[in-house]
Amino acid sequence: MKIGILGTGEVGQNLARGFLGLGHEVMIGSREAGGEKLDKALAAAGSGARGGTFAEAAAFGEMVALCCLGAVIESVLKLAGAENLAGKILIDATNPLDFSKGFPPRLLDLPDGSAGQLTQRLAPRARVVKAFNTAGSHIYVKPSYAGGPPDMFICGDDDDAKAGVGEVIKGFGWGVVDIGGIDAAHYLESMCMVWVLHGARAGGWGHAFKMLH
Amino acid sequence: MKIGILGTGEVGQNLARGFLGLGHEVMIGSREAGGEKLDKALAAAGSGARGGTFAEAAAFGEMVALCCLGAVIESVLKLAGAENLAGKILIDATNPLDFSKGFPPRLLDLPDGSAGQLTQRLAPRARVVKAFNTAGSHIYVKPSYAGGPPDMFICGDDDDAKAGVGEVIKGFGWGVVDIGGIDAAHYLESMCMVWVLHGARAGGWGHAFKMLH
Repeated sequence: MKIGILGTGEVGQNLARGFLGLGHEVMIGSREAGGEKLDKALAAAGSGARGGTFAEAAAFGEMVALCCLGAVIESVLKLAGAENLAGKILIDATNPLDFSKGFPPRLLDLPDGSAGQLTQRLAPRARVVKAFNTAGSHIYVKPSYAGGPPDMFICGDDDDAKAGVGEVIKGFGWGVVDIGGIDAAHYLESMCMVWVLHGARAGGWGHAFKMLH
Repeated sequence: MKIGILGTGEVGQNLARGFLGLGHEVMIGSREAGGEKLDKALAAAGSGARGGTFAEAAAFGEMVALCCLGAVIESVLKLAGAENLAGKILIDATNPLDFSKGFPPRLLDLPDGSAGQLTQRLAPRARVVKAFNTAGSHIYVKPSYAGGPPDMFICGDDDDAKAGVGEVIKGFGWGVVDIGGIDAAHYLESMCMVWVLHGARAGGWGHAFKMLH
């Protein structure tokens, strides 16, 4: 499948690496078609990834992942173009974090209620699935724990889209916990804060949530 | 140790049962000193539990646990009496859930930011520790999973109080994940919603969070 990645940071790099490892074609989109940020992201993602603008990556992908900072969701989606996302699965991996008072960050109070809902509103014909936001991106691909595979928590309004993203998540080596519609996204964005605050106290970033059954 | 339990529902019953099992003395407090609710709670908690008013249970306990519905925190703490809680560890096991639109509930937007912060404001000299709110109370005591012990997530402003509650949690058979001050309580109350929404979708209530390391 063709995958568009919107964002050149670590989240985008690690998602690109994971998708390439599963045999998909990947284009990483950036604000500008060239430049240092994109070159660095392409190098980190591994061989085979191509680069482009946000609009080019959105148009390229049959499945697209939004991996930008929470503060710039609106401008990135505007540049990507809602028409380029129509009908497609759009993974929202963002967290609306406010670093203005330093580290650890706080969760921004968004008018839409969450970054997930903001994303769905700005890309109304995309099938948004909140995912990959409750774990550090360096453990996205084939994480290994004595306690077994960790779980990725997801939500979204389209069950088929969630099933598609669930297959990707399982391919990355995780279990899937579906908590419902995109209106539940705030709860997953809060879980990101639990992950961050525990890391800040424990002084390590290798941890991941699991739901025991 | 003497433990005061503020609330006769399942959370209070199961906490009382757990504390009794660890050899503590327990008094369950209710709005009225007698009555059917209290009798039922005492029977469920197991032999040895005594009953009283909220004020009596707050005064009795060297450690006190707030186990009421989120909607009545203010009235319960008023009846318990802030002076009866001064200097004591106060476990806040509540969740500010709104069931007015049916099940599953939604998380209430509280002016204080969270039930934990509301509790700390109303009992300013108590040492509030948010705990026991991210899991169903029927699995509080000695839960058993193939993946090992689950984790209880806590926060609060007093490190000694958190250490004390941590010992209790370990005694109940759980691991402990500390995420910081009481201003992080909203994130744990959101985790309750993740627990609830997953249960609502999966049709089961035996699940529990674990943090893999």
